[in-house]
Amino acid sequence: MGVEYLYGRRPVVESLRAGRRAIRRIIFAEGIEEAQTVEEIRAEARARGVPIDMARRVWLDARAQGANHQGVLLEAGPYPYAELEDALAAAEVRGESPFLLLLDLLQDVQNIGTLLRTAEAVGVHGVVLQERRAAGITPAVVSASSGAVEHLNVAQVVNLAQAMERLKAHGVWLAGLDLGADAIRFDQADLRGALGLVVGSEGAGLRRLVRERCDFTIYLPMRGQVASLNAATAGSVALYAAWQARGFKGARESQAAKG
Amino acid sequence: MGVEYLYGRRPVVESLRAGRRAIRRIIFAEGIEEAQTVEEIRAEARARGVPIDMARRVWLDARAQGANHQGVLLEAGPYPYAELEDALAAAEVRGESPFLLLLDLLQDVQNIGTLLRTAEAVGVHGVVLQERRAAGITPAVVSASSGAVEHLNVAQVVNLAQAMERLKAHGVWLAGLDLGADAIRFDQADLRGALGLVVGSEGAGLRRLVRERCDFTIYLPMRGQVASLNAATAGSVALYAAWQARGFKGARESQAAKG
Repeated sequence: MGVEYLYGRRPVVESLRAGRRAIRRIIFAEGIEEAQTVEEIRAEARARGVPIDMARRVWLDARAQGANHQGVLLEAGPYPYAELEDALAAAEVRGESPFLLLLDLLQDVQNIGTLLRTAEAVGVHGVVLQERRAAGITPAVVSASSGAVEHLNVAQVVNLAQAMERLKAHGVWLAGLDLGADAIRFDQADLRGALGLVVGSEGAGLRRLVRERCDFTIYLPMRGQVASLNAATAGSVALYAAWQARGFKGARESQAAKG
Repeated sequence: MGVEYLYGRRPVVESLRAGRRAIRRIIFAEGIEEAQTVEEIRAEARARGVPIDMARRVWLDARAQGANHQGVLLEAGPYPYAELEDALAAAEVRGESPFLLLLDLLQDVQNIGTLLRTAEAVGVHGVVLQERRAAGITPAVVSASSGAVEHLNVAQVVNLAQAMERLKAHGVWLAGLDLGADAIRFDQADLRGALGLVVGSEGAGLRRLVRERCDFTIYLPMRGQVASLNAATAGSVALYAAWQARGFKGARESQAAKG
């Protein structure tokens, strides 16, 4: 079994709560300051019988590859990828139309993590990632998502275009986020119903073969001198528009509960 | 005069185009590959009479403090901060109601840059930053914004709460992005008219003194297990909602022109 070291307090808590990985142990840095999040990790570990070890900070530094680990590592098995069908099944269980996010070759770890964090917050049933030439769900992505990906169904596929065909066969409409001339302004597109939002890479956008398989494309209007958006930002605005079209179904009632 | 080294191809191009800083020279890394963006920088430099020097890559590395400079530095004067009144004047010149973004102690450079990039794309007339305990417009923020801040009116104020009072005296309504119990769902709030959107820090949100000065607060609904958003993402979704309430006034007509 491959071993991964997840790092950061929030990501470690969320991975423990999600309970989908094979968990080996938690490693705290010696002299770690007791904070609310550390106590949260202790409580989750107790509840799940996960051992806690201590190690020198430099030992953690090496395993987090220089990232800010906040004094906490989780030694765990690899990320539990889902299948495309798991995402569709999740929609069925909830009695909802499928709501999916597809990423076409996004490269930047921070962008992927930020976008998946939004995807979790708006309740997508699953995410589809192209396997080759794109970043997978590494510990850095887990951290960038603030642990949200530990709760998400993420399917890695060898060929995104083929996965799109499979989704279409299941009645999912595919909306590409794109700058093409025939794109519809995002607030004027019909984003209700079974939907897969397709987001392209930071520089190049959607690949031709991917764009061609979209049922329609949408764009975000812009003004100003630079008028370009971060890929995770654009995807997040579109995800919120799609969830808004679903009447924000499933939203938490109490804002205070969000902490 | 303080000297700053801006880095990255897009940020350097945008800073040259904006023409607001005192520009000394451009420094290319020896052996830099000629790409479209490099030719763009050469053209902007020629048009503005800015000298171009060459230096060893390690020399650039040191001045970009380890960041990815893409072989290009711009040696320039400090960021040209604006005054609160410049932002209000910009709205008047355009014949529009003021549309402002206020940041309360955002810390993360990437978040600040990403959010300001969105602010530029939706055409805010100005941004207000708290001066102390928050990051200013450093070269890292310029890069994170993909150069967009070079075109923005950014005012740094000693006391954000006082600046809010001044804006209110000018008839600007202040909407805080917050999780409070009395917050209005963002799509149900009236975001037309003279508006200042106030975004809090990553962890703590709005400070009490800042929240109290907001005319109302808005929230983004969430579901899911983690249900928390990146601060730049949340701010960007709210900025788009506010611009949507303004009918996307000023949006570029041609999407193709956005490149």
